[in-house]
Amino acid sequence: MPNLRRYLPVLDWSRSYDRRTLSNDLIAAVIVTIMLIPQSLAYALLAGLPPEAGIYASIAPIILYAIFGTSRALAVGPVAVVSLMTAAAVGQVAEQGTAGYAVAALTLAFLSGGFLLLLGIFRLGFLANFLSHPVISGFITASGILIATSQLKHILGVTAQGHTLPDLLGSIFSHLDETNIWTVAIGSAATGFLFWVRKGLKPLLKRMGTPALMADILTKAGPVGAVVATTVAVWWLELGAQGVNIVGEVPQSLPPFTRPEVSPDLVGALLLPAILISIIGFVESVSVAQTLAAKKRQRIDPDQELIGLGMANIGAAFSGGYPVTGGFSRSVVNFDAGAQTPAAGAFTAIGLAVAAVALTPLVYYLPNATLAATIIVAVLSLVDFSILGKTWSYSKADFTAVAATILLTLGLGVEVGVASGVAISVLLHLYKTSQPHFAEVGLVPGTQHFRNILRHAVETDPSLLTLRVDESLYFVNARFLEDLIQKRVVEGNGIQNVVLMFSAVNEVDFSALESLEAANQRLKDMDVGFHLSEVKGPVMDRLKATHFLDTLNGEVFLSQYDAWTKLRRSSSA
Amino acid sequence: MPNLRRYLPVLDWSRSYDRRTLSNDLIAAVIVTIMLIPQSLAYALLAGLPPEAGIYASIAPIILYAIFGTSRALAVGPVAVVSLMTAAAVGQVAEQGTAGYAVAALTLAFLSGGFLLLLGIFRLGFLANFLSHPVISGFITASGILIATSQLKHILGVTAQGHTLPDLLGSIFSHLDETNIWTVAIGSAATGFLFWVRKGLKPLLKRMGTPALMADILTKAGPVGAVVATTVAVWWLELGAQGVNIVGEVPQSLPPFTRPEVSPDLVGALLLPAILISIIGFVESVSVAQTLAAKKRQRIDPDQELIGLGMANIGAAFSGGYPVTGGFSRSVVNFDAGAQTPAAGAFTAIGLAVAAVALTPLVYYLPNATLAATIIVAVLSLVDFSILGKTWSYSKADFTAVAATILLTLGLGVEVGVASGVAISVLLHLYKTSQPHFAEVGLVPGTQHFRNILRHAVETDPSLLTLRVDESLYFVNARFLEDLIQKRVVEGNGIQNVVLMFSAVNEVDFSALESLEAANQRLKDMDVGFHLSEVKGPVMDRLKATHFLDTLNGEVFLSQYDAWTKLRRSSSA
Repeated sequence: MPNLRRYLPVLDWSRSYDRRTLSNDLIAAVIVTIMLIPQSLAYALLAGLPPEAGIYASIAPIILYAIFGTSRALAVGPVAVVSLMTAAAVGQVAEQGTAGYAVAALTLAFLSGGFLLLLGIFRLGFLANFLSHPVISGFITASGILIATSQLKHILGVTAQGHTLPDLLGSIFSHLDETNIWTVAIGSAATGFLFWVRKGLKPLLKRMGTPALMADILTKAGPVGAVVATTVAVWWLELGAQGVNIVGEVPQSLPPFTRPEVSPDLVGALLLPAILISIIGFVESVSVAQTLAAKKRQRIDPDQELIGLGMANIGAAFSGGYPVTGGFSRSVVNFDAGAQTPAAGAFTAIGLAVAAVALTPLVYYLPNATLAATIIVAVLSLVDFSILGKTWSYSKADFTAVAATILLTLGLGVEVGVASGVAISVLLHLYKTSQPHFAEVGLVPGTQHFRNILRHAVETDPSLLTLRVDESLYFVNARFLEDLIQKRVVEGNGIQNVVLMFSAVNEVDFSALESLEAANQRLKDMDVGFHLSEVKGPVMDRLKATHFLDTLNGEVFLSQYDAWTKLRRSSSA
Repeated sequence: MPNLRRYLPVLDWSRSYDRRTLSNDLIAAVIVTIMLIPQSLAYALLAGLPPEAGIYASIAPIILYAIFGTSRALAVGPVAVVSLMTAAAVGQVAEQGTAGYAVAALTLAFLSGGFLLLLGIFRLGFLANFLSHPVISGFITASGILIATSQLKHILGVTAQGHTLPDLLGSIFSHLDETNIWTVAIGSAATGFLFWVRKGLKPLLKRMGTPALMADILTKAGPVGAVVATTVAVWWLELGAQGVNIVGEVPQSLPPFTRPEVSPDLVGALLLPAILISIIGFVESVSVAQTLAAKKRQRIDPDQELIGLGMANIGAAFSGGYPVTGGFSRSVVNFDAGAQTPAAGAFTAIGLAVAAVALTPLVYYLPNATLAATIIVAVLSLVDFSILGKTWSYSKADFTAVAATILLTLGLGVEVGVASGVAISVLLHLYKTSQPHFAEVGLVPGTQHFRNILRHAVETDPSLLTLRVDESLYFVNARFLEDLIQKRVVEGNGIQNVVLMFSAVNEVDFSALESLEAANQRLKDMDVGFHLSEVKGPVMDRLKATHFLDTLNGEVFLSQYDAWTKLRRSSSA
């Protein structure tokens, strides 16, 4: 059943599952579970959903991904950027805290899952390539800033809203008078502590001679420590009565069965955000999965990944969750902790299910400020402006795309930001190809090789104009070619033959064919020969299917050297 | 003042204006004026505007184009496709026949003029290239069908509306019971007569020995004949009382001074249609102007044309008109009639102004059915499905773009149709470049030329893998390259060196640079050399600005033959 195994990778790895793999997977699951409990609550807060939604979104999706996904280490669940995008999308159709808001989040997960499945079934994973790496870097950096800013309100204890940097800052500023001093104390203590855990704790433990594995676990447990300490503080000092916002009642239950609403209105409003979330989620997930797979010389199949992530999102839609994807930090932790198969994910799901049933009363007094602190510390590590410098020195087009993505994401929100990033990259690429580079070439003496007459010392012949066309010819640049040939021939004196060297022409579309026909006709009228050289196989096949070669006022040469030998000799004879 | 002359071409041609040019221009103006009177009334009807709007739209715009435009023969005014697009755009914001409708049409002309001016000032005329020739052909054909169908209601005398083929046909069908028998009689007689004038009259006059110029004028005057005959018939037989719709009262005046409304709501609703109208109008106009200029070995400047057309549209906005552009049929008539300078256009404008003041009472009894007949006969000559066959046999991608443009224009209207045509062409181009053609190449014996091992009998060396990359490398295909190198090297046995032959690589963007770095690192880990050959100047300049060449686990060769000589020798040594 090789075909069934392609669609159900679980059939593949489960056959060689043994005691050793089991114990490795179990250890990884315990570590990841401890880390995921506060993280899941925090991301639900970021998405504007009740805290349990974050835990539910990590249970069914993980199990479904374990069955359908191809990465051995990817951990699926809520992630920061997707949570932010969920808040932005759902906030447009419903008020936070209403039942409609939660249903819209389920619907968003359902649409996103359906879209990913469709892409996977039709093997359209390559579409993710339209999101260039610089654009993703810029987008992640800007999102990190937006997310950190959006969490400031929880640290200050004020009400504020907005999906863009100016809105968020303006809203926080105008509510500064609501600041709660106790909340600020908890929030800044937690933030400071978590930054110290991240930067200072590990070196300290090392100096103290703690074993490496232990030091690692202690560092990872930092957020849990902050959660426990601040929860106890709030309960002990009765800070809830002082206006400190706490998580409060969380239902003690396994993930409920829920249903997305597929009304035309809601689907219409959420379809575009769902597509953007899917693509961002897929790209993030695939790049994490590929990085981790390469370290163990394993392979992942991007099209099957789409199916795995699609199923995970559909699972989230029917079990009280919201859009999920493969997360960077949780996957790295999973990998570092020694997870060997997707079963580690399934064990994590069991751990979270136990937490959902047994531990939720314990977080009643957990202050929102602590959750905000864990988010801020996590996302600020994503902020990295170095891509601006790197692209600036390499290519202004890439720089423009990155800078625009960052500015538009901060200024107009995540959806506009990422969509503009893609659009700008595509437009700049088309612009570059619309005015292609052409070089007049001559023979490098003593070889059969032809190069640009402006860059190399080469032999030329005044009766022979050879233009190397440095771009595929298609509608965007077809007219440019026609004008260029006309101009060069009119300028040059005594030109008897024009050769277009097609070594860099990878496509000639119908518009360009019409331009070549027009150029051929004009040169014929001027009594100038028109030749092609080094036409590639696929281009030649296509030209042969037309009348162009019959009417061509010249020849097609296999190599430019053949053209040079023949046309130079005939002109000097 | 060469600079001023660039922006005011009138300063150029007016210096050599003499008596002979004047008389040629005057004759052309008389012929064009006679043809334009019924055409202008008809196109106003198509745009849903009062008949005088069509005449007003031909006066100020013609004069402004004569000052700012570069074509000697282009005749600017209302044209069929732009009138249809105006009806579609304005119909969304106002009810036909209201004052708001006319104001919205002025605003549309103003926005369109402003957009064209902006493009012209920033010299962005190349943007029109995004509309490929096959897409334009498909769009014009579908628009012709839509226009002819929309005029059927006037031939039948029923009320019907819609901007798509199904809507129009459904609406006409459900109102068939309103059919007016007198209107049908006039409409079909006029349509039949005009078809006969177009196809049968000229050969007949020739056989009768009529001089060519006279035969030409008589053929061009066909619509005027139909107008006069049916107007007299309606007046004589008092058919207005029988329910035949007539043009009725038309104000006797010069173009009024009008003002577009630039409220945010109206601008928001009309901006996108205005941009589409501008681009379609510009492309149509430039292709007509280029065709006519080539016949007299003159040149037009596309960027200055944008300024000319922009001024013409702004003129239309302030003088009771609606969006205009250079029309195909009127320009050809102008050219054939011997127009030598834009002054012919100015004389036409004077003729139309006289008509607006003196002749408008004469069209009181003119039936709308006759105007509809002139439109139908004119636009059906634009319908040409042969582009479907031509593109089908050449390239399925081009065919897909044309077929989609035709179907979407007919099914969803002109705006969706043309926008989809552009989007589909761009996406198909990107799709083609996302999975580029790669060829493994070897040496053609006895030459220094390298070709595909699958297509040619060539020499190869098992330790040396040479891949010719047949596409520029950029974000859309960057990952593809990385995977391909990895796959080929793992498959091939005993490969010691990989050469990428970059003769067809015209760009390496930042994402692709990162892929090359990753490939270099992986090959280094496998102890395989990584080389480039035939890197073009512009690409090399860019690579030199990075650390890539320092870390390259191999060399950059000027020619593939150098790479072959060196790497083959070293491997056999």
